Amino acid sequence: MTGEAIADFGDEPMTGTSDGALARAAGVTAWRQIADAIEADVMNGRLTPGSQLPTEARLAERFAVNRHTVRRAIAALAAKGLLRATQGRGTFVEAKPLAYPIGRRTRFTEIVSREGHEAGGELMSATETVADEETARRLRLMPGAPVLRTEVRRFIDGTPVSYGTSFFPLPRFAGVTAVLRETGSITRALAACGVTDYMRAETRITARLATGDDAARLDLSPGRILFVVDALNVDGTGTPVQAAHVVFAADRVELVVENG
Amino acid sequence: MTGEAIADFGDEPMTGTSDGALARAAGVTAWRQIADAIEADVMNGRLTPGSQLPTEARLAERFAVNRHTVRRAIAALAAKGLLRATQGRGTFVEAKPLAYPIGRRTRFTEIVSREGHEAGGELMSATETVADEETARRLRLMPGAPVLRTEVRRFIDGTPVSYGTSFFPLPRFAGVTAVLRETGSITRALAACGVTDYMRAETRITARLATGDDAARLDLSPGRILFVVDALNVDGTGTPVQAAHVVFAADRVELVVENG
Repeated sequence: MTGEAIADFGDEPMTGTSDGALARAAGVTAWRQIADAIEADVMNGRLTPGSQLPTEARLAERFAVNRHTVRRAIAALAAKGLLRATQGRGTFVEAKPLAYPIGRRTRFTEIVSREGHEAGGELMSATETVADEETARRLRLMPGAPVLRTEVRRFIDGTPVSYGTSFFPLPRFAGVTAVLRETGSITRALAACGVTDYMRAETRITARLATGDDAARLDLSPGRILFVVDALNVDGTGTPVQAAHVVFAADRVELVVENG
Repeated sequence: MTGEAIADFGDEPMTGTSDGALARAAGVTAWRQIADAIEADVMNGRLTPGSQLPTEARLAERFAVNRHTVRRAIAALAAKGLLRATQGRGTFVEAKPLAYPIGRRTRFTEIVSREGHEAGGELMSATETVADEETARRLRLMPGAPVLRTEVRRFIDGTPVSYGTSFFPLPRFAGVTAVLRETGSITRALAACGVTDYMRAETRITARLATGDDAARLDLSPGRILFVVDALNVDGTGTPVQAAHVVFAADRVELVVENG
């Protein structure tokens, strides 16, 4: 196996073994050896984050094993969060988790851009509704007060990283929907409603496993871990402007609390 | 089922059905009904956090089902983090997760006591060793500098909640071991070495699933979620005093970031 890189497959001559098959290590199963080879290629940078793996068929040919063996290796690496096997579109190398600082100024687009990545946001839904008890308590409204409920999915370099439901008081934030639809940015949406600065007052972090629905929304394997983040943003006077309930793919962000 | 409480089992007359068996709801399996009944009892407080469930045999008798059905109900609730099934000692109701603030002053014993719970700590090991590159970088030492490596398990009301490895610079913190062994408190151990106040400089939060070893240490079901917390504490001059790598049972704490 040594010296053979998955990333090189196809164009370069085989190295290591004359026929390209696995030089079986004693006591190590074929799928484990393939998994180790792929992992090594990710670690040494021959397979870069976001890049697509060759198909199962090509990998099977490459290692002279059957596709079941390749599939098992890929499943093991997906379970470790190293690969992302999508339905129909192929298997990709997961990016390194983004360090996501949680502090008074927590701005998704700013954080992602600062790290040299492209931030994206997609408004999935926007509904005018009324605050239930919990939402009213968080936003300091009366239960039954009008609120805007939005669902937003966020991306780093095109990979979905979070999916969240937010509540904004109405009528103050009626203008949020149009800006969110256009830009996907909460910061711009709040600015359009006159909130030029906002602060994170509190963040509560729990965790759960991704359901099938979560997995579909986040392009994730079911059973991967989600951070569940409940956040409250307030304006300059301390008045709540947004209560958010967001799930993050824990494979894709590392939450960082800095005490300046 | 309605009105029948697991907690009442044994001493009170059966209600709901004349023979104590399940009044089967259409389309709902027996194990799911039993799980729902236990969950309802936890939610309405008839089964209190930390209390022990009747044995599988008694529950099976109570619901007139076989033990396999009871076992499946308990497994489903353990998977949700509502029950904790231990090897040999029985099944217990999980306590509500403790809100664990992460800020400049993060003191386990203080946080737990303030919430009206009993904090405990157990020194598992203490070894004088040398700093590897990563530890040296975090503690701002030269690689190879002497450090004390400790392993501490922490408890809330006798239930293990975290297990962590810490590194302390030597010779400055040679006195940590004795105090940790006696009290289990990092705060007291640092104070004994002249650090009367310390601050949390940075906290990084990731997550992973509990292995069998984690599960044994934390009295947890394997596969439950762990928060992995890497923390750096510094003294009043900003000099690192402790680099910690701690896993918390995510069922037992909710991490709270407050921005004052």
